[in-house]
Order: sequence, then C-alpha cells, then structure tokens
Amino acid sequence: MSKAAMSEAAVLIAEDEPVLESDFAKEMIRQMRAIDTYGTYDDWSLAKILEPFVLTKEMKREIPIVGDPDEIIMARVKAFYNAIASMIERGCGLMAVPLLNLSHEGFGRVIITVGKLVVLDKTLRDVHRFGFPSLEKMKEDADKLLNSALKIIGEHKDVAEL
Amino acid sequence: MSKAAMSEAAVLIAEDEPVLESDFAKEMIRQMRAIDTYGTYDDWSLAKILEPFVLTKEMKREIPIVGDPDEIIMARVKAFYNAIASMIERGCGLMAVPLLNLSHEGFGRVIITVGKLVVLDKTLRDVHRFGFPSLEKMKEDADKLLNSALKIIGEHKDVAEL
Repeated sequence: MSKAAMSEAAVLIAEDEPVLESDFAKEMIRQMRAIDTYGTYDDWSLAKILEPFVLTKEMKREIPIVGDPDEIIMARVKAFYNAIASMIERGCGLMAVPLLNLSHEGFGRVIITVGKLVVLDKTLRDVHRFGFPSLEKMKEDADKLLNSALKIIGEHKDVAEL
Repeated sequence: MSKAAMSEAAVLIAEDEPVLESDFAKEMIRQMRAIDTYGTYDDWSLAKILEPFVLTKEMKREIPIVGDPDEIIMARVKAFYNAIASMIERGCGLMAVPLLNLSHEGFGRVIITVGKLVVLDKTLRDVHRFGFPSLEKMKEDADKLLNSALKIIGEHKDVAEL
C-alpha cells in the first residue's frame, strides 16, 4: 500500500467492523454525507467517514478540559442526534424533531420532540471533546437513547400524536 | 423638561400605560434587569425599559426584510420567552424550561418544556424585526401563549410531572 493510500485508511475503526453494517451506522453515514457539500467523502470507506466520532481516552486526555467547540464538532454532534431522531421516526412512525442549543463554551442542551412529547432531553457538556471510546460504544449509547425514546412514546402515545 | 430629560422618556409606550402594572410587564422588567449587567436601566422608567419591544408598522417597514439579528435583539427574544416560561411556572407550579435555537439568518425555533411535555413550540422568522405593534398587543400575545401552555398542562398533567 502506498503511503498516500495508507493515510486514507481508518485506524480507529476496523474496515471490516461489523457495527458498520448496523442501521445506526448506516444512518450516521447518511447524516455525514448530507453535510458533505463538496463530496469529500465520496471515495472514503465507511470506517473512515465515521472515524472522527471515535475519541480514545488517550486522545481525550490531549484535548484541553475547557475549550470552544468549532463548527466541525458542532456538525458532528448534530449529525449524531439527527441520526437518533431519524431512527426514532422509523421506530414509531411519527415525526421526531431535534433541537440543539450550544453555547460558545461547549455547554448546551439537546432535545428531541415527537408531537408534544419530549422523548430525549440531554444536557451537553465538553462538546469540544465530543466522541466515543469506540464505534461499538457509540452504537450502544445511541441504542439506549433510541430505546428510552420509544419506551416513553409507547407510554404516552396520545401526547406523541398531538 | 430639559432636552436631556426628554430624550430619556419613552415615546412608544405611555409612561402611565396601565399594561405596565400587569404581571406580564413586571416579569418582562425582571427579565430585562437580569441582563442589564451595567445597571443602565437603574434610572429608566418602566415604559423606557420595555420600549424596544414595540415596533410600529412604520418602523418595521424601515428594516430590511432579510437581515441578521444582532446580540441585542436575540437577548430581547430570550427575555420574552423567559418571561413566558416564568409565568407558566407560576401558573402550574412545575418548572418550565425554554430552549431557543436561532440560526444566523434570523430563523429559529423556540420551545418551552414542562417535564416531558412541550407546552410551547414556535417557529421564529424575521427575528431581526422582532417586536410588537404595542405593549398591549405584546401582552395579548404573551397571554395567548401562556393560556395555551396552561391548557395542555392541565390536559396532560402526568407527562408534565415526569
């Protein structure tokens, strides 16, 4: 493999990682392509496209504790919660709308609503260090958020349908 | 009255306007004072403090249709919805949390949640031209938002208490 080709390969996600086949990873890829205005990802592998979401403990330690999240990280955070909203929508058949509010200091709040029901409500901290120890862990976290959203929708269907 | 004193008086809200005595106006004053870091409003009349919320048709016509809202206008929009959240809280005894998301083009969305219930959900447009024809009209709009929020809380108390 040439040096150039090697620099293109993902190192934090194996190219044959099984999680890449999951609905969640597919939705994440869709969200990332949606914001890829210049087609940069066209020749990229799936692992390479999702690699920026992986932040190992060691990498995290290198990032200052206090910092301003830049536009690129904010776009990633949005992509993650948009993907979850998309999956909620598919899971319940009702429109799920994410709303993200980030302050410049990397604090914020994200909520997803279905009808008049808040199905996800999360305080965000340290957004400039947004990332997951692995793609698997990322999918696990997303599944938890998805399941708890679908659970509350099941319990309060009337409000979700408002 | 000296020229200096005259320039301090509100012209868009009468100093003896009865609406200034309402709970809504009092809450708005409280919100405005909360963001008045330098005590600029300390010597101002109530009418003068709330005057920037009044935008007559003629004034509106002078503002370009497309524009970026500045920090000062955004702070006003926040003060308005914070005041409504505060009044919802007082009306139902549960915490009401506003979440405002404004894009740089002056479009956005504001929601207020009580528990897991969305009690106000509004798309914002033309935020750079935020304002009301009169203080009376502003209170009317606020009352409508407040009443519809309290109504849905009454109907779905269980979700509001989550």
